[in-house]
Amino acid sequence: MGLPKAVRLFEEGPREGFQIEKGPIPTDRKIALIDALSATGLTRIQTASFVHPKLVPGMADAEAVVADIAMRPGVTYTGLWLNDRGMERAIATGRLAMVGRISTYASDAFMQRNQNTTYNAHMKAQGDMIDAYRERSIPVEGAFVSAAFGCNFEGDIPLPKLMRVVRDLVALFAEHGTAIGTLWLADTMGWANPEQVRRTVATVREAFPDTAIGLHLHDTRGLGIANAFAGLETGVADFEASVAGLGGCPFAGNPGAAGNIATEDFVFLCHELGIETGVDLDALIDCARMAEDIVGRTLPGRIMHAGGLNRT
Amino acid sequence: MGLPKAVRLFEEGPREGFQIEKGPIPTDRKIALIDALSATGLTRIQTASFVHPKLVPGMADAEAVVADIAMRPGVTYTGLWLNDRGMERAIATGRLAMVGRISTYASDAFMQRNQNTTYNAHMKAQGDMIDAYRERSIPVEGAFVSAAFGCNFEGDIPLPKLMRVVRDLVALFAEHGTAIGTLWLADTMGWANPEQVRRTVATVREAFPDTAIGLHLHDTRGLGIANAFAGLETGVADFEASVAGLGGCPFAGNPGAAGNIATEDFVFLCHELGIETGVDLDALIDCARMAEDIVGRTLPGRIMHAGGLNRT
Repeated sequence: MGLPKAVRLFEEGPREGFQIEKGPIPTDRKIALIDALSATGLTRIQTASFVHPKLVPGMADAEAVVADIAMRPGVTYTGLWLNDRGMERAIATGRLAMVGRISTYASDAFMQRNQNTTYNAHMKAQGDMIDAYRERSIPVEGAFVSAAFGCNFEGDIPLPKLMRVVRDLVALFAEHGTAIGTLWLADTMGWANPEQVRRTVATVREAFPDTAIGLHLHDTRGLGIANAFAGLETGVADFEASVAGLGGCPFAGNPGAAGNIATEDFVFLCHELGIETGVDLDALIDCARMAEDIVGRTLPGRIMHAGGLNRT
Repeated sequence: MGLPKAVRLFEEGPREGFQIEKGPIPTDRKIALIDALSATGLTRIQTASFVHPKLVPGMADAEAVVADIAMRPGVTYTGLWLNDRGMERAIATGRLAMVGRISTYASDAFMQRNQNTTYNAHMKAQGDMIDAYRERSIPVEGAFVSAAFGCNFEGDIPLPKLMRVVRDLVALFAEHGTAIGTLWLADTMGWANPEQVRRTVATVREAFPDTAIGLHLHDTRGLGIANAFAGLETGVADFEASVAGLGGCPFAGNPGAAGNIATEDFVFLCHELGIETGVDLDALIDCARMAEDIVGRTLPGRIMHAGGLNRT
């Protein structure tokens, strides 16, 4: 497959970014960034995660953030949760688009570390989550596989191992009476390379031609945009990204390590390749600079520091 | 053409980097970085530029740097000059490999700004430079085209315009009794995208199949490594890069703007693709961290902040 005509962008910055920063960030500044992002043409923004405030203190104001967003028509505002309680909190805001997604790990070591559970137990819990969505009439739209390309704690993730997880997910959705929707492959710790992305996408597509594939790529080791390009070339049209590269990689042991690819750098790539994003790049660059001002440190995005192309 | 089996790396960091930093950097620290780089397996290192100290104060100690390098057998130490006087200074060190290269611009606006001359006058001067090399028995090994993919001052550089410059260079070398060697295409200000790199390399190769193509890519707008990947895929095997991304983009109007791709991020890409570099990545990452310590600010390289893959 060649390049897609257009991509769907899922902006993760407010959630990826503000959950990792040290020190409190004023709620009104989080809201200001979300409102600015909603004016760029981005149509889907993850606003906050509904997790235990003791575990992620930076997200303790999730409800307060969501309460005061200037909701813009045409923009889907989402939240992240990992369990029933988080989902109930998101529902209770009354302002978020409830879209159901489950998530698992291609790395047992990473799952153990993050969730302290086994693969089988975790997958069973994800099946229960699908049921919980369906009971609440929440559309189930996808599954997310962390560490799909490699893991700092487990090493390489061979493609056959990832494919077992993918097959298990497809089967799990079928068992629970629905389809997987979009399969998100996440390079959580920056292990992927462009050829691996191509090979992986092609293999998944061959096995499950009706399943859309989304990519969530981190730039931890500098290959994020090259991997995104490889994804585009294999026809992937769904991408998560984070304005200014907000976020980082808590597993790299260095607060300066890069996280998710910067949305505006990816938008620049798409536009240069003739792929539509629906986003005003200059407005998005302004948002990236706002994000840097909010967190008070240099963020990894590139074009935000260089400016766009001043074509005449 | 597919990926090359191996690449030749031209390390530009000591020159790209130390000429742009504000404030003096101690000569012994520059030497320490060059010596550390020479122990990584890199075989060609540009040590300094021999330009007027009033124009580039950071290079006023070029001779002193070169004088105290612990020359390692098998490593080629080079210098940069833009005219006869600089070349004579480089020769006078008695320690540098004298390799002749000429350079020009695909952007008239950039040439005017940098050299205050016209294209025809500049090309004539480059022909004189070829003669000067030959009179001194300095091997002429290449030509460098700045702003080959676009220019902050001129905008897009259409491929036909670049091809005119390339044809003129090939003719110039022939007129002066030699061949062009390697044609270096430089994305000086981060205008290239991966498809443009492919199309450009393919077009040059079709016109001049016997001319090797080298790439000098900047990451100004985040596409540097993706562009390098596109170059590798079209069979390019000669790359200039800068440890830690030392350098920056003085034309971006922001001291935080990224410059040349980080050598160690590119080495990581090559190794993950199975391409030989001859470089010890961990040792190179240590050099990148040393470079950051020397300049006292966060540098753009990614893997230096995240660490390599701890495969077991």
